[in-house]
Amino acid sequence: MTAVRALLHSHPEHISQADAISRCIDACFNCVETCTACADACLAEKHIEKLISCVRLNLDCASVCTATGHVVTRANKAGHRQLQEAQLTTCIAFCRACAAECARHAATHQHCAVCAEVCNACATACTNLLTSMRMPA
Amino acid sequence: MTAVRALLHSHPEHISQADAISRCIDACFNCVETCTACADACLAEKHIEKLISCVRLNLDCASVCTATGHVVTRANKAGHRQLQEAQLTTCIAFCRACAAECARHAATHQHCAVCAEVCNACATACTNLLTSMRMPA
Amino acid sequence: MTAVRALLHSHPEHISQADAISRCIDACFNCVETCTACADACLAEKHIEKLISCVRLNLDCASVCTATGHVVTRANKAGHRQLQEAQLTTCIAFCRACAAECARHAATHQHCAVCAEVCNACATACTNLLTSMRMPA
Amino acid sequence: MTAVRALLHSHPEHISQADAISRCIDACFNCVETCTACADACLAEKHIEKLISCVRLNLDCASVCTATGHVVTRANKAGHRQLQEAQLTTCIAFCRACAAECARHAATHQHCAVCAEVCNACATACTNLLTSMRMPA
Repeated sequence: MTAVRALLHSHPEHISQADAISRCIDACFNCVETCTACADACLAEKHIEKLISCVRLNLDCASVCTATGHVVTRANKAGHRQLQEAQLTTCIAFCRACAAECARHAATHQHCAVCAEVCNACATACTNLLTSMRMPA
Repeated sequence: MTAVRALLHSHPEHISQADAISRCIDACFNCVETCTACADACLAEKHIEKLISCVRLNLDCASVCTATGHVVTRANKAGHRQLQEAQLTTCIAFCRACAAECARHAATHQHCAVCAEVCNACATACTNLLTSMRMPA
Repeated sequence: MTAVRALLHSHPEHISQADAISRCIDACFNCVETCTACADACLAEKHIEKLISCVRLNLDCASVCTATGHVVTRANKAGHRQLQEAQLTTCIAFCRACAAECARHAATHQHCAVCAEVCNACATACTNLLTSMRMPA
Repeated sequence: MTAVRALLHSHPEHISQADAISRCIDACFNCVETCTACADACLAEKHIEKLISCVRLNLDCASVCTATGHVVTRANKAGHRQLQEAQLTTCIAFCRACAAECARHAATHQHCAVCAEVCNACATACTNLLTSMRMPA
């Protein structure tokens, strides 16, 4: 069990999708880590001029995933469900776009291959949480 | 002229809505400042138990505005227009929700009155940027 | 191997302490997750008035660990070693202070027990990286 | 009066250096804005390979100033003065380093000239707050 999952299970409020939420939080911050590191690795590549869009999408994706990780952590209020859904939907779009850009460089740059995989995993975790939020409890 | 506006005007790429973008960035980080400070002020109030939703929305709004401020700064690539629009739309929803919650406490707590005004101003700046992005250049 | 560790090992620059760095990054973002969640859990506790300092330290620690996770990811330039050391030293101070505050509530609140442990683990990972940076390569 | 200054003056706790604190917060987030924008402008320059260190320092400085802006906002507890001082001291070091790097490119790139000025202004605001914190109230 990850630390945040243990923590959400000891939250004084009943959190109905604690497992899906904690998986989403872990996926978001994992994506923050790899996108930040992939941007830095791109900056060190010889043909940096071909990777400018990749750096920008990496940085954008890291920023949006940070916000999603925060917002989803406080996902325990029925009244804010629409806000959560908006944030998750936006995050999925950034993760998919960053994964697609990184995938273009995956054959040449192993860091982009790793990053694409983590971005896709984050999009999946966000999608799973969205789905579970929309199901009757 | 604010610093970021001067900076965007010296950006080597042509940035077609530099003024609307810089106003949006300034509004986002102004909102980060006031939401963070309003959350802290709420924590110091006698009847904190009535302000829990306000603290949470303040923190969420600060996180989302931080992401928006970053993403909009890199808003110079036509290819990513849909991502920008998704982020701006989500940000507007959080700012409106936080402004509405703060407005409920504005008569009692001056910090909530200030914060509501700044959140609404941020929603307006994001809306203006969205509108100008959708107009033919 | 965690994703960021795999990524740092495929970084085009030679990163001399890639393992210590990736462990530090993972520990920092783990701490961001638990501090953010612990602050939210505290807000839901009946006796929130006893936990105000804990909420504030949780939020501070999350902010500082976010910065440390970013800065350490770019820790591949000899010229900036003093900056890295300053950030790591500051981060250790926040993690220790947050761990100490959470430990005071650990018997009553399981989320504080989890958070204290993660904060201490982050302080240790930062300390280990500091030590390895100061050793001759 | 800036919004955060108005807000701190309506904070229920007595904040002894509200003006120095609000000036520091404004300076920090102004620095976040310009460093983020300067990093993006550098990415668009023809000779990006000469600006890699500048991009990295810009991103580091933005991350550290974000943390400082948050931490200083909650600077109302005597017990945490040492933590505040550590964060401010670290932030000054990053701002000075980023200003120095940007100054090297100021003659060629106007965005670096703007950014250097804002980084130095942030270092000054942090220094002023540090000084006022150490003076007897």
